[in-house]
Amino acid sequence: MTEETRTVFWQDGQVCLIDQRRIPFEFEVARYDTVEGVADAIRTMVVRGAPAIGAAAAFGVALAARQSRAGSVEGLLDDLRSAREVLARSRPTAVNLFWALDRMMRLAEGSAWESADALRAALLAEAQRIADEDIAINRRIGQHGAELVPDGATIIHHCNTGSLATVGWGTALGIIRTAALLQGKRVHVLVDETRPRLQGARLTAWELLQAGIPHTIIADSASGHYMRRHGVDLCLVGADRIAANGDTANKIGTYNLAVVARENGVPFYVVAPYSTIDMTILHGDLIEIEERDADEVKVIQGQPIAPAGSPAGNPAFDVTPNHYITGIVTEYGVIRPPFSVNLARLAAEIRGQSG
Amino acid sequence: MTEETRTVFWQDGQVCLIDQRRIPFEFEVARYDTVEGVADAIRTMVVRGAPAIGAAAAFGVALAARQSRAGSVEGLLDDLRSAREVLARSRPTAVNLFWALDRMMRLAEGSAWESADALRAALLAEAQRIADEDIAINRRIGQHGAELVPDGATIIHHCNTGSLATVGWGTALGIIRTAALLQGKRVHVLVDETRPRLQGARLTAWELLQAGIPHTIIADSASGHYMRRHGVDLCLVGADRIAANGDTANKIGTYNLAVVARENGVPFYVVAPYSTIDMTILHGDLIEIEERDADEVKVIQGQPIAPAGSPAGNPAFDVTPNHYITGIVTEYGVIRPPFSVNLARLAAEIRGQSG
Repeated sequence: MTEETRTVFWQDGQVCLIDQRRIPFEFEVARYDTVEGVADAIRTMVVRGAPAIGAAAAFGVALAARQSRAGSVEGLLDDLRSAREVLARSRPTAVNLFWALDRMMRLAEGSAWESADALRAALLAEAQRIADEDIAINRRIGQHGAELVPDGATIIHHCNTGSLATVGWGTALGIIRTAALLQGKRVHVLVDETRPRLQGARLTAWELLQAGIPHTIIADSASGHYMRRHGVDLCLVGADRIAANGDTANKIGTYNLAVVARENGVPFYVVAPYSTIDMTILHGDLIEIEERDADEVKVIQGQPIAPAGSPAGNPAFDVTPNHYITGIVTEYGVIRPPFSVNLARLAAEIRGQSG
Repeated sequence: MTEETRTVFWQDGQVCLIDQRRIPFEFEVARYDTVEGVADAIRTMVVRGAPAIGAAAAFGVALAARQSRAGSVEGLLDDLRSAREVLARSRPTAVNLFWALDRMMRLAEGSAWESADALRAALLAEAQRIADEDIAINRRIGQHGAELVPDGATIIHHCNTGSLATVGWGTALGIIRTAALLQGKRVHVLVDETRPRLQGARLTAWELLQAGIPHTIIADSASGHYMRRHGVDLCLVGADRIAANGDTANKIGTYNLAVVARENGVPFYVVAPYSTIDMTILHGDLIEIEERDADEVKVIQGQPIAPAGSPAGNPAFDVTPNHYITGIVTEYGVIRPPFSVNLARLAAEIRGQSG
């Protein structure tokens, strides 16, 4: 995977996805020429990560338009509505999936198209725009965030927030790329493995290895030891959802890392596109925590690691209260506490610009 | 494994060890009739846990005496000294191993024996005494510690401190046994899996399942989430070494758990036999941290989980500063802060009793 390779892209009339299920052991690009195939790829987690899923769904709509034999705009719109249903059923809880589908359908239904082919071309261009925008946002996040990274920094990074979770470049990992690859800063990344699904050990380590960025994989529970004995300059994590007061839901283990970081005086930054901030949720305790299959804890790479008769708990994410968070990095810059005030101010500014 | 089964025992002239490498997937008692076999079992971790290793080595010396064809006491002593060397080389850093070997050799060399067979009998009796004492100490620890466990308690337990780490009953897990099995308290144990070697998920869950004690396996990094969202009454952990000021070296992840516990107001107890307290070490920063093989992090049950080219860090334990510790439970009772004062006072009392 080079800097130019995208996790989700369009090539020769096909939707192409880096197959993340076997990384780091096999690198394969899966290619789809039917909308059903794309939906299945989202369902089976060939592609994962909210922005990557959104882009895959957008290209899925473009693919459906190409697949359709409709000669009329109206006939094509009918086929697109069917395709939307197929894609929407693939990961029912993925917010970005619906956001991307809605954006594609708004485009299709919002204009009087000259011809079916004109609509087909517009849909492909829109999907491409969604993918391009994701990378552009990540590049801006990287520029803002890299200012927080001193030369020679040791950084703890949680889960995978890289190219594989987005269309390309990544969010928290995008900051590390910007600092190391564009600004030439020396960094060392402590990659926590991120149990139970090991996105750190499997995906983040692989991305850093490809990029030539020095790193060391550690057990999640070793983070405090490294802060005390080795010295850590900052922690960078992503976000699944950020409440209006800055409380952040993210991959399980984020809260423990944040508490240990504050205890050791290590700055702790949440990194996410602005679209992750949900101003309708007042604070983090209102966020429901998804409980996933116990076998994600009890079985690793197909091997059981615990007695079959023992139950396991598997909360997919946790909530980090805002007072553990040093700053939230978005494409608009670094937001500092008090988050309730500063997030509201930013939202008003953005409304003002677009209104 | 019943309550009566021991991890280390003598039967029909053989040293018998529960083979811990394959638990929970296979339960097998390995039997040894040569001292070389016992040394190999310690080296290859058929047996692990400091007290269990000590007892295995003591029985190994008794086995060497039985193996020896010497007719004279002097001839037998020569064979015992050779056996001691074989056993001492098995796990060079295990303090309890040397403690047990020294105790056995002091007995052999400290008296004028009537006959070689009298010495043989005395050595077997001494090894049996070491094993019995370990269980008796754990039972006393259990009685003291169970007073800290309220009825209906939810307890987070780290690593394995149970029957399998000792001759029987266990230390921190012995407290849970005492509360649940002897006092009939309802408890629920959140078993953290304890990466990288998974002693929690593999061994502790298995012991609790055998004992019929309700439990749930969780990822190490989920402990804080459970404290915040589900409510946890106390944490129980073991210890590898306790400094004179109460700072505690224990399995990696103990420090993170302690920090998150204090942040959530959850009492955090260290549980260990008094022999774990090292009054010659003033504070925890003087304790050297053993770095183990990276493959313990990168390979699980024979399956790689990370890129081959990525390095991994694998500190075997960490140090928890005394101010995170609510109390230290030994066979003498629960020691409270200030630990520097109260550990010194206890040491003086014990010296007074034995002096």
